[in-house]
Amino acid sequence: MGRIRLGPGAEFDLIRSLLEHDASLRERLETHAPGVDSVLVGPGDDCAVVHGPGIALSVDLSIEDVHFRRDWLEPPEIGWRATAAALSDLAAVAAEPVGILVSLALPRSVDADAEALMTGVSEAAATYGAVLLGGDVSRSPGPVVIDIVAVGRVGAPITRSGVRPGDAICVTGRLGGAAAAVAAWKRGTEPSTEARTAFARPRPRLAEARWLAERGALHGAIDLSDGLAGDAGHLASASNVRILLDLAAVPVHPAALGPDADRDAGLALALGGGEDYELCFAGPADTCAALTDAFRERFGADLTRVGEAVPGEGLYARERPDAEPRPLRTGGYSHIDGQA
Amino acid sequence: MGRIRLGPGAEFDLIRSLLEHDASLRERLETHAPGVDSVLVGPGDDCAVVHGPGIALSVDLSIEDVHFRRDWLEPPEIGWRATAAALSDLAAVAAEPVGILVSLALPRSVDADAEALMTGVSEAAATYGAVLLGGDVSRSPGPVVIDIVAVGRVGAPITRSGVRPGDAICVTGRLGGAAAAVAAWKRGTEPSTEARTAFARPRPRLAEARWLAERGALHGAIDLSDGLAGDAGHLASASNVRILLDLAAVPVHPAALGPDADRDAGLALALGGGEDYELCFAGPADTCAALTDAFRERFGADLTRVGEAVPGEGLYARERPDAEPRPLRTGGYSHIDGQA
Repeated sequence: MGRIRLGPGAEFDLIRSLLEHDASLRERLETHAPGVDSVLVGPGDDCAVVHGPGIALSVDLSIEDVHFRRDWLEPPEIGWRATAAALSDLAAVAAEPVGILVSLALPRSVDADAEALMTGVSEAAATYGAVLLGGDVSRSPGPVVIDIVAVGRVGAPITRSGVRPGDAICVTGRLGGAAAAVAAWKRGTEPSTEARTAFARPRPRLAEARWLAERGALHGAIDLSDGLAGDAGHLASASNVRILLDLAAVPVHPAALGPDADRDAGLALALGGGEDYELCFAGPADTCAALTDAFRERFGADLTRVGEAVPGEGLYARERPDAEPRPLRTGGYSHIDGQA
Repeated sequence: MGRIRLGPGAEFDLIRSLLEHDASLRERLETHAPGVDSVLVGPGDDCAVVHGPGIALSVDLSIEDVHFRRDWLEPPEIGWRATAAALSDLAAVAAEPVGILVSLALPRSVDADAEALMTGVSEAAATYGAVLLGGDVSRSPGPVVIDIVAVGRVGAPITRSGVRPGDAICVTGRLGGAAAAVAAWKRGTEPSTEARTAFARPRPRLAEARWLAERGALHGAIDLSDGLAGDAGHLASASNVRILLDLAAVPVHPAALGPDADRDAGLALALGGGEDYELCFAGPADTCAALTDAFRERFGADLTRVGEAVPGEGLYARERPDAEPRPLRTGGYSHIDGQA
């Protein structure tokens, strides 16, 4: 797999610097590192995949006051959310969960909630068939820190770099619900139950991804953790294609529309808000239409064509199918620039 | 592998609670979790090992003001130390490094040092043959957080639970050097160069562990991250044996003896201080004597018999070979109870 290019943003500058370190590291190690031969998919995708039977590995940090606030969530929800976010990276490569490792740092004031937090971790793991493989615990001098390592099995990993011109770009479920909850909390109001659930209890699309992969529907995929604009931008960048979104087609979560059914506000949350943990994928042009009914019957969720891949680069959007496409900011939500 | 019992201490109460969650999780999943069948070594050992060609996985948290202070270490040393500590868990199961994943959370004030920190991570990884597999980055609202996932290959993992009565208990290298540096900083003085190097640039015994394993010398092993007393206690507990230490034999690091060559003070650092990242292992009674010369020639380090395993339980120590053994506190250094 070639070098992966990432979209802009401070978070990705840091990741890019990791990749550059790795490139020089690989050169130095070329002749004597046993590790290199074992790496099927390296950094820059949702998971690393090492040879053997195909072990997919990903790690996902959740930090208090960056990814969540303690007055927003109950302890089991903090644990569920962190675990679901990590497992969602396995969905993005169509891997089957095997287990998790849990790193947990707690300030003294949270010790009484540690077990409840771990209950949420265990529930999420059990729900998706992952067992606890290990972990590390530490005192924290400040924020609650949960870092979850997701471990999965995969025969033929789906990467971000497999999108081809002519592919349909599709998403599962509805977008912007989690961001609607965050927006409500930041306004000082309580989110709706639907919005709160979308943020606190995300459902990674693990079985859905494997189902789609088995049907040849996934040329490339990513899970939506930075918002559709940011993550579709990553797909375009990694695959060296232009992705063109039809904004009218984006399935906005009812909770993101709000009581006034404000489509523009909802669309902004779907594009720029993070952490829906739905899948955005590219597949053969007729994929969505052909699989929508069976997908809804099997999983009770929508499969929606939101655009297409064309030759070129970057992320473009049009308001209506007959409108002129214009470049779309791909910023998304950044856990470097943004604070919860 | 049966249920592993851990030594006492708040840190281990938390880990134990993780294990208990996993036990109930396993029951629930018995019939339908694909993960369970893939797990060769579960939580409670230094690494998890999943089936296939034997992939060893461990995760190791380093948190500012708990594991290190920023005024003690240069940024590359922070990165080296965190990575070496994680790779040391691979040594403890005699696995060969494949790669690492890096989770990094930085406060804004440290952004300028991020690249230097990652240089230390890359150097440690390259030194031991591990490539960068991925990671996650986030803003931190306070401390620097580095969580390193170590990934290795292992045919026949060495666990903590394989110690048998009659085994010799041995250690590599010399102990207490890293703790001597911490003690100096806490007194408000500069540690000696030797002590500082032991803390800032630990050398995990990766090649050494595989060399010993190939020679049948490892029935059970652990890496010394909590001090000899704490970690030998974990070995005893996991293997259902009593471990009897000969205190006069413990190889105290010259830096731990200090300018006054105070053996008692040095021994206290060796037993109770953490993070030497040497190996403590159990093997056939004649192991150390038979391999000491070849080990020193190959690795330039000592191999020292420090005690034996006998029927019973717990950790005991005697001042001299003819003295009466007495129970030894196994507390070691705890990253829950202790603050850097």
